[in-house]
Amino acid sequence: MPPPISLLTDFGLKDTYVGQMKAAILRVAPGVDLVDLTHEVPAQDVKAGAFLLWSAVEAFPEGSLHLAVVDPGVGSTRRAVAARTRRGDVLVGPDNGLLVPALEQLGGLASAVELTEPEYWGPRQSRTFHGRDVFAPAVGHLAAGVPLERLGRALHHLERPFSFPAPKEEDGCPVGEVLHVDTYGNLITNLPGAMLPARFRVHIGTTTIPEAPHAHYQVVASGEPLSLVGSTGLLEVSIRDGSAADVLRAGRGARVRIEPR
Amino acid sequence: MPPPISLLTDFGLKDTYVGQMKAAILRVAPGVDLVDLTHEVPAQDVKAGAFLLWSAVEAFPEGSLHLAVVDPGVGSTRRAVAARTRRGDVLVGPDNGLLVPALEQLGGLASAVELTEPEYWGPRQSRTFHGRDVFAPAVGHLAAGVPLERLGRALHHLERPFSFPAPKEEDGCPVGEVLHVDTYGNLITNLPGAMLPARFRVHIGTTTIPEAPHAHYQVVASGEPLSLVGSTGLLEVSIRDGSAADVLRAGRGARVRIEPR
Amino acid sequence: MPPPISLLTDFGLKDTYVGQMKAAILRVAPGVDLVDLTHEVPAQDVKAGAFLLWSAVEAFPEGSLHLAVVDPGVGSTRRAVAARTRRGDVLVGPDNGLLVPALEQLGGLASAVELTEPEYWGPRQSRTFHGRDVFAPAVGHLAAGVPLERLGRALHHLERPFSFPAPKEEDGCPVGEVLHVDTYGNLITNLPGAMLPARFRVHIGTTTIPEAPHAHYQVVASGEPLSLVGSTGLLEVSIRDGSAADVLRAGRGARVRIEPR
Repeated sequence: MPPPISLLTDFGLKDTYVGQMKAAILRVAPGVDLVDLTHEVPAQDVKAGAFLLWSAVEAFPEGSLHLAVVDPGVGSTRRAVAARTRRGDVLVGPDNGLLVPALEQLGGLASAVELTEPEYWGPRQSRTFHGRDVFAPAVGHLAAGVPLERLGRALHHLERPFSFPAPKEEDGCPVGEVLHVDTYGNLITNLPGAMLPARFRVHIGTTTIPEAPHAHYQVVASGEPLSLVGSTGLLEVSIRDGSAADVLRAGRGARVRIEPR
Repeated sequence: MPPPISLLTDFGLKDTYVGQMKAAILRVAPGVDLVDLTHEVPAQDVKAGAFLLWSAVEAFPEGSLHLAVVDPGVGSTRRAVAARTRRGDVLVGPDNGLLVPALEQLGGLASAVELTEPEYWGPRQSRTFHGRDVFAPAVGHLAAGVPLERLGRALHHLERPFSFPAPKEEDGCPVGEVLHVDTYGNLITNLPGAMLPARFRVHIGTTTIPEAPHAHYQVVASGEPLSLVGSTGLLEVSIRDGSAADVLRAGRGARVRIEPR
Repeated sequence: MPPPISLLTDFGLKDTYVGQMKAAILRVAPGVDLVDLTHEVPAQDVKAGAFLLWSAVEAFPEGSLHLAVVDPGVGSTRRAVAARTRRGDVLVGPDNGLLVPALEQLGGLASAVELTEPEYWGPRQSRTFHGRDVFAPAVGHLAAGVPLERLGRALHHLERPFSFPAPKEEDGCPVGEVLHVDTYGNLITNLPGAMLPARFRVHIGTTTIPEAPHAHYQVVASGEPLSLVGSTGLLEVSIRDGSAADVLRAGRGARVRIEPR
């Protein structure tokens, strides 16, 4: 059984672009398990895509393949790459930073190639849809057992570095920011659980959450704010039965200060 | 071939939560067929989720597995359960009423367990994402052949009863209400076809539909209301080429009276 | 390994209709690869569905099956059909024009049947959901190896012709129109690359794009219009890092004139 292939794009679900990519994979690797991560990355928002890809890859079995396409530079000189992680997974997509946090999450770069070998491209080549014409066939060939090294010329590193903004410390207080607003309006910060004191206050905008961390959502009343380490291992700010983004008027980049208590 | 697994959540499609759940299943049961029912259940709306799950399960082959997560009580004392139906299917999710109508639809409860056995949980445990950490691994192990009884302690009944509001009879007229507004704006009621006279009028809000049931949509003019027993076996009110919810200004809970003619 | 099955509908993703169709397929053909093209075709918009189906089918391996349901005439006298293309693929859906451009794209009609044989329908029959009750079981049986001819009575042609509006020539200039607005706001025209001069101006509404075709998106500044032959082989008009539909206030049907330079 070949490993599953995840897919993440900013293609949306109104067009057939995702379906065409899957067709290109199945043409080469019939029967492989395909798992959509999301196709609703905001259009051409590489940073948002990088966060979302990072959030998901650890849940996959070792040796999985991940196809990610948020690619405003398609057709220009940006490189198309496949990168193997130290854990043994392979990430395929544009070399624009999109893959980097996920790569680090899976142990860092073990080896990489630029997808220069036309033998492993699709039957049709367009200027605007390397997802279908270059990336998806490459992933399909990897799933079918073609060694990474055959797909193109070796690279020693990816071109575009990218990392989430690092949390800081100010006067003994961890200070971070919101990395992502999820579908419920939860504010996911860049503060890892390991950086937090046992008991703390959270300051975000004009709001103070006095008694964090909370055990779960139902320990506060409906409509009240709470804060806990979420499923990514990062501190989140939520409103029970509501949207923290709406109620606290906070979004990506909002400053979050932790005060030990 | 293991049976298919359906998935229903309120996670939406903008985050990677659904993909992480699928990864957790495929880690245990590679190659299994995964079928999305919907992930657009309104956030934390257990009743809406219960209707949608109910609407779909009968179409699946006997012995299918259904994973449903609309779970505002995640992390609190609400139980995580797996319930086998008399037809032989297994439903997995929170014990908050979400599973009950589907369970009844498939013949009622045959046996159930609380998912207390950590051996069948995922490799990571969070406070907020039992979908990935508890429910999905349980479903995966079931698909891989682990007997239900191994997943935890036996339960004799589910804790939270739930059923759709029952239709009534007033002066010899069936009276019901709208259970669900579908994507076309069709109003799906709680009135089963078997409860209806051969020919009837439908009263909803200030509207009367004089000559129901209709054979299909095209027997009325564009923009006109009609009513027929839909694909769930329940009476529906529709507007040809339009949205009954918008045109009739009716939604979930709206009263529907049937007058024999 | 049976060929993949694509699915295209106007059912949306908020209801369980798509999941019920997949269940009906897997009941007959467990393990088959299912690929969603889109389920966000505007409600009952057969022309939009025909474009989207056409856009995707060529990417699939020969012998694939395509299930398409945009079916305002469900339950009326419109025919339910399965049509084999000269390339060897089979398209299944209502005979209302939806399948025709895709059929032409795959070499034209080789043979077809009306789905009149109840042995290959599903276990339940509704008036409103032939997707689940007629089309999906038919596709499942085809995937499981039932010959097309067994599904019903032979047809010599489809009833409803349909084709995209043809481009014209006015004073030596190709003149076309917008067929589709994609998720990024790109305007996809009916002008094939082969009809275009080597270098040209594009006139659309009050906008002139002076130096087409462009090599890729990044050769113009952010916010500027450009035009190139896209992944379907048709001329597209785009705005770098923006929506051409919004910025140029143009949509389906908008006139596009090409002036050689």
